[in-house]
Amino acid sequence: MICKLANYADAERIDTLRGRLRKEGVESYLVKFDESHLLITENPSDRAATLLAESALVTHQFRLGTPYQLTSRRYHPADTTIAFADVLIGGEYVHVIAGPCAIESEPIARELATLMQKSGLVFFRGGLFKPRTSPYSFQGLGESGLSILRELKNMGMLLVTEALDDRCLRLLADIVDVIQIGSRNMHNFSLLRAVGELGKPVLLKRGMAATLEEFLMAAEYIVISGNRNVILCERGIRTVSDHTRNTLDLSAIPFLKRETHLPVIVDPSHGTGRRELVPAMSRAAVAAGADGVMIEIHPQPSIAWSDGDQSMFPADLPTLLLDIDRIAAAIGRKLWKKSSKN
Amino acid sequence: MICKLANYADAERIDTLRGRLRKEGVESYLVKFDESHLLITENPSDRAATLLAESALVTHQFRLGTPYQLTSRRYHPADTTIAFADVLIGGEYVHVIAGPCAIESEPIARELATLMQKSGLVFFRGGLFKPRTSPYSFQGLGESGLSILRELKNMGMLLVTEALDDRCLRLLADIVDVIQIGSRNMHNFSLLRAVGELGKPVLLKRGMAATLEEFLMAAEYIVISGNRNVILCERGIRTVSDHTRNTLDLSAIPFLKRETHLPVIVDPSHGTGRRELVPAMSRAAVAAGADGVMIEIHPQPSIAWSDGDQSMFPADLPTLLLDIDRIAAAIGRKLWKKSSKN
Amino acid sequence: MICKLANYADAERIDTLRGRLRKEGVESYLVKFDESHLLITENPSDRAATLLAESALVTHQFRLGTPYQLTSRRYHPADTTIAFADVLIGGEYVHVIAGPCAIESEPIARELATLMQKSGLVFFRGGLFKPRTSPYSFQGLGESGLSILRELKNMGMLLVTEALDDRCLRLLADIVDVIQIGSRNMHNFSLLRAVGELGKPVLLKRGMAATLEEFLMAAEYIVISGNRNVILCERGIRTVSDHTRNTLDLSAIPFLKRETHLPVIVDPSHGTGRRELVPAMSRAAVAAGADGVMIEIHPQPSIAWSDGDQSMFPADLPTLLLDIDRIAAAIGRKLWKKSSKN
Amino acid sequence: MICKLANYADAERIDTLRGRLRKEGVESYLVKFDESHLLITENPSDRAATLLAESALVTHQFRLGTPYQLTSRRYHPADTTIAFADVLIGGEYVHVIAGPCAIESEPIARELATLMQKSGLVFFRGGLFKPRTSPYSFQGLGESGLSILRELKNMGMLLVTEALDDRCLRLLADIVDVIQIGSRNMHNFSLLRAVGELGKPVLLKRGMAATLEEFLMAAEYIVISGNRNVILCERGIRTVSDHTRNTLDLSAIPFLKRETHLPVIVDPSHGTGRRELVPAMSRAAVAAGADGVMIEIHPQPSIAWSDGDQSMFPADLPTLLLDIDRIAAAIGRKLWKKSSKN
Repeated sequence: MICKLANYADAERIDTLRGRLRKEGVESYLVKFDESHLLITENPSDRAATLLAESALVTHQFRLGTPYQLTSRRYHPADTTIAFADVLIGGEYVHVIAGPCAIESEPIARELATLMQKSGLVFFRGGLFKPRTSPYSFQGLGESGLSILRELKNMGMLLVTEALDDRCLRLLADIVDVIQIGSRNMHNFSLLRAVGELGKPVLLKRGMAATLEEFLMAAEYIVISGNRNVILCERGIRTVSDHTRNTLDLSAIPFLKRETHLPVIVDPSHGTGRRELVPAMSRAAVAAGADGVMIEIHPQPSIAWSDGDQSMFPADLPTLLLDIDRIAAAIGRKLWKKSSKN
Repeated sequence: MICKLANYADAERIDTLRGRLRKEGVESYLVKFDESHLLITENPSDRAATLLAESALVTHQFRLGTPYQLTSRRYHPADTTIAFADVLIGGEYVHVIAGPCAIESEPIARELATLMQKSGLVFFRGGLFKPRTSPYSFQGLGESGLSILRELKNMGMLLVTEALDDRCLRLLADIVDVIQIGSRNMHNFSLLRAVGELGKPVLLKRGMAATLEEFLMAAEYIVISGNRNVILCERGIRTVSDHTRNTLDLSAIPFLKRETHLPVIVDPSHGTGRRELVPAMSRAAVAAGADGVMIEIHPQPSIAWSDGDQSMFPADLPTLLLDIDRIAAAIGRKLWKKSSKN
Repeated sequence: MICKLANYADAERIDTLRGRLRKEGVESYLVKFDESHLLITENPSDRAATLLAESALVTHQFRLGTPYQLTSRRYHPADTTIAFADVLIGGEYVHVIAGPCAIESEPIARELATLMQKSGLVFFRGGLFKPRTSPYSFQGLGESGLSILRELKNMGMLLVTEALDDRCLRLLADIVDVIQIGSRNMHNFSLLRAVGELGKPVLLKRGMAATLEEFLMAAEYIVISGNRNVILCERGIRTVSDHTRNTLDLSAIPFLKRETHLPVIVDPSHGTGRRELVPAMSRAAVAAGADGVMIEIHPQPSIAWSDGDQSMFPADLPTLLLDIDRIAAAIGRKLWKKSSKN
Repeated sequence: MICKLANYADAERIDTLRGRLRKEGVESYLVKFDESHLLITENPSDRAATLLAESALVTHQFRLGTPYQLTSRRYHPADTTIAFADVLIGGEYVHVIAGPCAIESEPIARELATLMQKSGLVFFRGGLFKPRTSPYSFQGLGESGLSILRELKNMGMLLVTEALDDRCLRLLADIVDVIQIGSRNMHNFSLLRAVGELGKPVLLKRGMAATLEEFLMAAEYIVISGNRNVILCERGIRTVSDHTRNTLDLSAIPFLKRETHLPVIVDPSHGTGRRELVPAMSRAAVAAGADGVMIEIHPQPSIAWSDGDQSMFPADLPTLLLDIDRIAAAIGRKLWKKSSKN
């Protein structure tokens, strides 16, 4: 249950109230969301609910019927939009976030960024810290690649990069625009809290066997820490279907758009693992209502250090963007391109 | 390997050739496909392959590298289209097949058919023989409902109905236009052969844990029996994702469209189990390249005898069709409606 | 709900009662189970339940709270045992059913049967009709192999063989002792009813994505047809775990033993697909309470026409039997061997 | 490839060799394993392999054919045993690790420990830091519960407790005997490295959708950091089977015992989520060759703060231990009990 607190509720009175709840066996969480101070509990007993209802500190009570609360659209009906200067994620426009799986060198990164800029794209994805199944595989350029990120930033790109732990967060905080939390860390609650406290926009990927309720609860860990700028990313789950690397669960899009106010995007590159399926799945994602897609692209996929099979050729980008734009138009939206705002 | 036989190959000579193959431990299958006589083997040994290559009866050899052969696009590059008088499945147009899960009564069936005709739809789906998990659940009207099918046929509808066994096939053969083989029977090879021999168009649904290779092999069982009019239907697979009844695997569409020449449609009703997700998944299916969608609709879903939660309200049909038409247009196709051909 | 009918309930009175139920929208099923005449309904409305409670024809009512009824241990608390002359499945003894995946030739079949007899085993498994993913793969010897089955029968073996359709049932009915219904046909309700009516013991394998509730409902289809001699066989389900062909779900054993009175066995050969894992999984199955295991064995697995990787070497059989015997003893049971009864 | 280095290989020479490898595009890892200095690479090119073969620093080369190297039994054929004074995990004896899911209070913890000691058990499991799906659920006593752990240690128990992050590791390092890494963190590579560097024995749980190859690679992350005392724990994976919370994949036991030298245990409590299935699954795990089982137990499961449904009643412990002892004896092993060593 979410309880909105009165403006005059000061720390002392709130503590008293929380102490009384605790005596009833109910833990409460004090959260600042938008401009409101909220007191949140899991499932208050009748006695605890009465106690809250009768408290002069509580001005509104919301019992949502779902385990996720702050991320629920029942609590916050309007879409959350995330602003990067004049660029908005979660609004009318549909975005294409592109870039290599891992940043391998400055020339390749620059080449891709230049290419993207020609197409009007601004969100560059690319990892410096790669979570790899094998400790013997390429783990990303790491700290030594930070200068490349700065270079891309200077070119005017908005950067999306994965963080694996506190150290990554510290290194990336001043440079990147969106911190990505990968599938393998969706259940790393310590990292979710840490990225919540950092306050930067977060792109949270669905765990590879996570239900959507668990996915929203992972987002709730971030939002409860004071950061509501969370972009949810469907990237496929593990199933018995073996023609793709993962099974892209596009029904997550309309389900999530109903259940939460957070923006929802799709990663068809990891979601299929095969570049020849990426265009169709990108069109489908947008048709289903996604706020964007995140796509891997590489000048020479066959020699990419990771995920070459799923990286698109740069030459295929314009057609993809045209198709996405047409699909977006068919449902009353528009592909965001730099020129589209000028 | 597929071997095309010369026109002068008569039964006796073919038998001799097959006998020689058998001595090499290689079984062969004689199939008529389009106008050609073919001899097909699984994976011929080198000796058997030589034997075929050197046979004067063999004019062409195709080694495809896939276990499915006649259904493979590598063997037959052009799209297979299935004609119902002036209506074509598998061509430029996208189809919406609609109707109730189970046919419950003549008035309801007529009401839905009339409604569909107003929207220009001609393919009516509805089951008389229902495969139900419980022997105590409603099993469909069965034989007593055949008169309703005849009535719908007289109204001008094209009928899609499931067959469970030989008896169903016999009862339905003269009335329906498309025989549906359900997910639970995708691996019922005896039924696949029987429906292949029947010669009517078949709508084959993917098994609930089937890989796409297995799905294509099931289609191959039908085609090898002499019937190449098979429509493949993705209807979701069982996964750990629990917000939907099944997980609709839309990546099957572009994959199948590349691998096979057969038409591919999607059933978003069974694929999600939730009517509120059906429109978005229908749009996504068409955007991904499906040749149609098959949708459950019921005048009063809350009292439907089966699958009420996933049946759409008739009132929502026009918007769905409009959206599908727009998405189809965005990728250069068109929704098929009776008026669209007049 | 199961209603036991009074001895004096005649066809006419029962029809009247069923007619009154039908007017309430409740279908009922008349079943003979053991010596009782039963009337079974799915979930009777309150009015229908009252109608049954007040009927003089109904002597007992059982509302079980599960969708499976006749197979439920709540209805029939005692273990069902299936007798083959002096051999009992489902009682104190644990059985090892062995044999090749497919019967390939008389010499191989005889060799295996002789070997098994030396070890005291009597249940011989082996398929003549094989459900194969590819229509181009070896489909079993079929009708031409019936004489081999007769030969094995003459040797004194009890035969377990799969049936795929009505034709198989007709051909096998007089020869085999147990009809196997394979995983791919667990949802083939027409076949389940047909094998139920045949009256012979049935070995029913769990479908590859079936829940245990669905598995028990499939058994219910057989039992409702008048045949309660059903042996349930766990054989693994499809999961994301890839070190085995399927994931053997041994928790099915204690769950099924609680929920149903039917015997439960395990197929570790299909359940793992790897012969080196079969002994450990056999021991585990018996330790978990299985009434037996069904194992593939082949004199030369490397040249077996199907499933060679999972077939055990005959030389490893004695150790396996010894281990199973020891595990059985540890939980107060015993491995059944011919000598053990002499 | 693992290369054993000569004793005279000093830092400078090794650096030179690694530099030459790097020029060939091959990264190498320097690891101390047992008493050997090793240089490990992923898949060296032919040129790099030659370079290593010809280096005077390299005394032995091991090309294993698996992505896991140090954890592979092909590299280290003998079982790894982990000693806690006179108690050994991974040897002849089978262990039962027991305790509550979460430590809730000192009295409950003491009560359980006393009970366990009466049964001869020494490994106490219990969490202070709980990874919970909901941020609003009980997260464990945290730091305030450390004194309870110290108390249990003073009672002579060996402690197994989960760590979620670096902070947990610091707090727990001096008190607990085994650090547990939970399923949700199996892919948290930063945490795996950190616990590897800590040097204490680690109990690593399989991720809920992890393959066994990924599981072994996670162990490799720990071992490469210099800590080979890793106990692998199968705890069930997510599947479509819904009668249990997870599907316990017992085939993992014989597979892992063949592939790796590390000890393997099973958690039937999380693996089933139902206490009534825990005894059968414990017996099965031991029959399949597990080195132990880890079981949840609670004096009053119905009021446990987490996982009550899967916690055993203390009164059922003696029978469980007796059964496990008998099964262990049947395969030539023994249940470890304090008295058994006196």
